[in-house]
Amino acid sequence: MHFIEWYPRGYGVAFKIKEKLFETQSKYQRIEIYETEGFGKLLVLEGTVQLVEQGEESYHEPLVHPALLAHPNPRRVLIIGGGDGGTLREVLKHKTVEKAVMVEIDEMVVETSKIYLGIDRGAFEDPRAEVIIGDGMEYVKNTKEKLDVIIVDSTDPVGPAKQLFSEEFYRTAYNVLNDDGILITQAGSVYLFTNELLDAHKAMNSVFDKVYYFSFPVIGYASPWSFLVGVKGNIDFTKIDLKRAEGLELIYYDPERHETLFQMPKYVRDLLEGKLKL
Amino acid sequence: MHFIEWYPRGYGVAFKIKEKLFETQSKYQRIEIYETEGFGKLLVLEGTVQLVEQGEESYHEPLVHPALLAHPNPRRVLIIGGGDGGTLREVLKHKTVEKAVMVEIDEMVVETSKIYLGIDRGAFEDPRAEVIIGDGMEYVKNTKEKLDVIIVDSTDPVGPAKQLFSEEFYRTAYNVLNDDGILITQAGSVYLFTNELLDAHKAMNSVFDKVYYFSFPVIGYASPWSFLVGVKGNIDFTKIDLKRAEGLELIYYDPERHETLFQMPKYVRDLLEGKLKL
Repeated sequence: MHFIEWYPRGYGVAFKIKEKLFETQSKYQRIEIYETEGFGKLLVLEGTVQLVEQGEESYHEPLVHPALLAHPNPRRVLIIGGGDGGTLREVLKHKTVEKAVMVEIDEMVVETSKIYLGIDRGAFEDPRAEVIIGDGMEYVKNTKEKLDVIIVDSTDPVGPAKQLFSEEFYRTAYNVLNDDGILITQAGSVYLFTNELLDAHKAMNSVFDKVYYFSFPVIGYASPWSFLVGVKGNIDFTKIDLKRAEGLELIYYDPERHETLFQMPKYVRDLLEGKLKL
Repeated sequence: MHFIEWYPRGYGVAFKIKEKLFETQSKYQRIEIYETEGFGKLLVLEGTVQLVEQGEESYHEPLVHPALLAHPNPRRVLIIGGGDGGTLREVLKHKTVEKAVMVEIDEMVVETSKIYLGIDRGAFEDPRAEVIIGDGMEYVKNTKEKLDVIIVDSTDPVGPAKQLFSEEFYRTAYNVLNDDGILITQAGSVYLFTNELLDAHKAMNSVFDKVYYFSFPVIGYASPWSFLVGVKGNIDFTKIDLKRAEGLELIYYDPERHETLFQMPKYVRDLLEGKLKL
């Protein structure tokens, strides 16, 4: 038995499966948990791989640490999505963080993850953590708090999470960031969601003071995976605080080789920089 | 209909298929050609994806250009394997190259590629090219020529190409290189052939004056894909000749961002550098 996620152009990522452990239809989406042959448990939302247990850090580490190490003093962090708790776990590794709010729309994802995955590794119980079940866009519109870092850990830019890649969302997010602030978002498969990456990049460019992009090889996704970074103020995202990186116990993201994060196929860089048109 | 290549740990790379165009059993291996839905033609040897037509440059460019641009004056180049002609095509883009010898063991791969793929784009007819049907190891043992760059474009380090990743082969290759020379080899999936990468790296380290490693996201392979570079003499592989890169018409490898080539998951770098044991 195997599970395949089909991407555009008939490209698939497949895992051999021992058994299906759980399936339900929540208010928002179909949630499935499988036991794979070689990667531990697999979390699937609406047929798309969210994570494999053995390798999930290859997504959560690049989503969290480059931004938190580039920010001079990240104290208040907002996570939109991230119901499995992996992003929250990585955020709370940073001693500067005083409060991390996670706004996940689907309570069933949180509960299912707690029961079957446990990758939060206690993060949900951390006194600095607050979990809110709600709409991320609405939260950002209504919050009175100012934030240092916003992390968008949503599903792909082709489904219901589409608004989290819009200019409207980026403008709202920009306004709740402190004078020096960073928003980072996953932005889909470099090779297979190139159009969505370009659209999100364009929307971000029209709002933020500086925009960066990078790619990382995420296990379980049609890698390389893209990430977009919007900076408010004067932060240089190509520079990180190596001292604060010590003791983070990283597996995939390598702070000492931060410059290699910016790997991007030439034609995609040309597209992002407007030197080439699709 | 779809085609899946299964890697270790039950990880698969899949393509939706329109039709199978060709299949044969050569003296060495089973050769298949498929028409995919979204990537043009697919060449499969012994069940493993060699290339997809739309995306093959994501393998051939990083295999060829970093080495040829790091070498101060690559005039004589040897390709071992590479029967489809893609590597030869990229090598011949370099004006410094006076002679490129390709030694492919399986004539049927060359002939099948000529008929169904044509990705050599005329390279086989280039007066600087010489195609030899034979065993790469034997060729290197017996040649009287001195070479500037050797490119190992073989099948994976888990099958019959295993000897091309051995210390014996690297020693023989080292001896036929000029005083300043480079050997580059593909070395398998970073995440899924980590042991083979470590073994090849160790073998190379015991022979070459300097060894480098890098990864690249190859379309159709379980990316990121690893590459190993052995240097004889004083070449610094982290530096390339940007002037010679002009006019190469690259799609994937980005000479202006050569430093990002060295992206490698932290734990794999730690393994390669002996800071971590499996």
